[in-house]
Amino acid sequence: MEKSRAERLIANAKGIDAVVILNDGSPFLDSTFWYLTELAGGSFEGSMAVVGKDGSLDIIVSALEEETASSGKGNVHVYHSREERDNYLREALKGTSKVGFNIHSASYSMVDYVKRTVKGIKIADATSAISQTASVKDSTEIELTRKACGISSRVAGEIPDMLSEGMTEKEMAFRIDVRMRELGGTGNAFDTISAFGANSSKPHHSPTEYKLTKGDTALFDFGTKYEGYCSDMTRTVFLSRPPEILERAYEVVLEAQTAGIEKYMDGAPAKDADLAAREVIDGSEFKGKFIHSFGHGIGMDVHQDISVSPKSEHILKEGNIVSAEPGIYIPGIGGIRIEDTCLITKNGCERLTDFDRRITFV
Amino acid sequence: MEKSRAERLIANAKGIDAVVILNDGSPFLDSTFWYLTELAGGSFEGSMAVVGKDGSLDIIVSALEEETASSGKGNVHVYHSREERDNYLREALKGTSKVGFNIHSASYSMVDYVKRTVKGIKIADATSAISQTASVKDSTEIELTRKACGISSRVAGEIPDMLSEGMTEKEMAFRIDVRMRELGGTGNAFDTISAFGANSSKPHHSPTEYKLTKGDTALFDFGTKYEGYCSDMTRTVFLSRPPEILERAYEVVLEAQTAGIEKYMDGAPAKDADLAAREVIDGSEFKGKFIHSFGHGIGMDVHQDISVSPKSEHILKEGNIVSAEPGIYIPGIGGIRIEDTCLITKNGCERLTDFDRRITFV
Repeated sequence: MEKSRAERLIANAKGIDAVVILNDGSPFLDSTFWYLTELAGGSFEGSMAVVGKDGSLDIIVSALEEETASSGKGNVHVYHSREERDNYLREALKGTSKVGFNIHSASYSMVDYVKRTVKGIKIADATSAISQTASVKDSTEIELTRKACGISSRVAGEIPDMLSEGMTEKEMAFRIDVRMRELGGTGNAFDTISAFGANSSKPHHSPTEYKLTKGDTALFDFGTKYEGYCSDMTRTVFLSRPPEILERAYEVVLEAQTAGIEKYMDGAPAKDADLAAREVIDGSEFKGKFIHSFGHGIGMDVHQDISVSPKSEHILKEGNIVSAEPGIYIPGIGGIRIEDTCLITKNGCERLTDFDRRITFV
Repeated sequence: MEKSRAERLIANAKGIDAVVILNDGSPFLDSTFWYLTELAGGSFEGSMAVVGKDGSLDIIVSALEEETASSGKGNVHVYHSREERDNYLREALKGTSKVGFNIHSASYSMVDYVKRTVKGIKIADATSAISQTASVKDSTEIELTRKACGISSRVAGEIPDMLSEGMTEKEMAFRIDVRMRELGGTGNAFDTISAFGANSSKPHHSPTEYKLTKGDTALFDFGTKYEGYCSDMTRTVFLSRPPEILERAYEVVLEAQTAGIEKYMDGAPAKDADLAAREVIDGSEFKGKFIHSFGHGIGMDVHQDISVSPKSEHILKEGNIVSAEPGIYIPGIGGIRIEDTCLITKNGCERLTDFDRRITFV
């Protein structure tokens, strides 16, 4: 029989007796909780999932979540008081000594609560075990991500037709979001970045009332969720011809993306893709203008725990899903970014997103 | 001169030398960071805000956020390496001993990072000081919330016209979301709950492909953001006449909401509102079917740190914004919830949301 996700997780957690996944109040909810339970929805504030040494999965939830929880994986324990919650937690962690947590997702308060409730346990960092497990996607997860990517790719193809002079960044973000939902997306994977002209030089710009003007860059970074799984892509186009420097930057970014993606394959160090792309940009007149990493893991969160950066120690594995997103940012003038969502395969990678990456003048 | 938000915060943090606000990776970002900086956007992963004893505000961000950060409040320090980040943090916390954190919003990892980087500090819980500060809204915040509430109220009024037999829960959630954006909302305050028939008995139901059928309850819990501020409301209607028990439940919930809201005023214990509403429901044939709290604080997060529950110790203050949302849930049959966003005033409260609360058969 195929191993359950909980069983794979505990097998990856060397020297750890149990892994505890903690949700505080929204938005401080850990997608690992949904990954393990395979639940499609529910809020699960204050809920906990405990993976035992034998691969068992205990879910501790309030009465509010009882009905929803019962349709997922795991032994569900419903508490009606703080005392009941404490007891279920103690029971689930009985006989454990070193307990692993998702320390970037669990609030300080919740970890502290577990420490105070279950005497004598030692806190360990289970981030890497969780990442190792969740970053290798099974076939169901790949299909859901493929669906999400298909939806956003279709929208990317429609961008030139949507766009016209005088539209605001906010209007375009709105249209992109609506189209993704119309095409079956279940909600944004993240707040859509819609950045025109000089605003596009800020990698994380939030849409404003700025109106698109001839010669402007128009950069769109967006993605949808589909049954819990995310797509992530960026398309940059121009309204009419931009300053020459930006056309040139586009060429370089495209070349850098290709160079990086060529390094994506099972067994390759993730940093090789970043370094290959960075070499292209730093070897051009845009040296130093690629101010972020080449990529990151993608899954139930749009940023998952694979770093594709110059110092990354991650070795790519078949089933990893990562972004490929080099960029060049020139303050006061504009920025260019081209991004795909890529699935690592045995001999290379498959781009799950697709759009016309050639330079486009609307 | 009026006190800055940072000054008000440190004044509320008795016995604490500094308050540190920490963002880990998205979605583990603390809205308090935006509250203090008064920035409208930006991602600010890995960024920190430090409020000093004198009310000073230091913002420590990566180069990625430099441009965006410079338009907000605070002294911005841009780091280009881990070492620079550590040094800015040590500098900002120089001479402090007891340092307060937002322990429900900060990840275990980030708090641990501060503890390891700045030797000798003691960790304190600043949750209550942050809540005391951010829960008393200034006039700008009230106006933004009023705008958000106006948008969702208009959508609530349109629900009977949107709704028809055979529509799915997902379709209705989509239409509500699009209308809020069309009317000027900047995005959902939370995932819209759209629950038909028996699904409405789950307070946190996620929309499915279930089709609306005659006699069904149709419950919609939704809200928009407007420049960072949230609205939150619930309207429940019926498609034709439902089982009699649900019509009766509607009456009781409406009566309970009125009874609770009558207790909302400056100086009153928050629990009084919950207890008044609960008395109505528990005094009816639906005893025990009101399985959550009467309300919660609303602000930049849709759930802010005011609890309106039987055991709440919060004393309401002018400028607090809280939900009023009693419900009755009958597994297998359906649920009723009626919710408004309310502003606490000197002598009572103002409902910032508005819709026809009378029983409605579409």
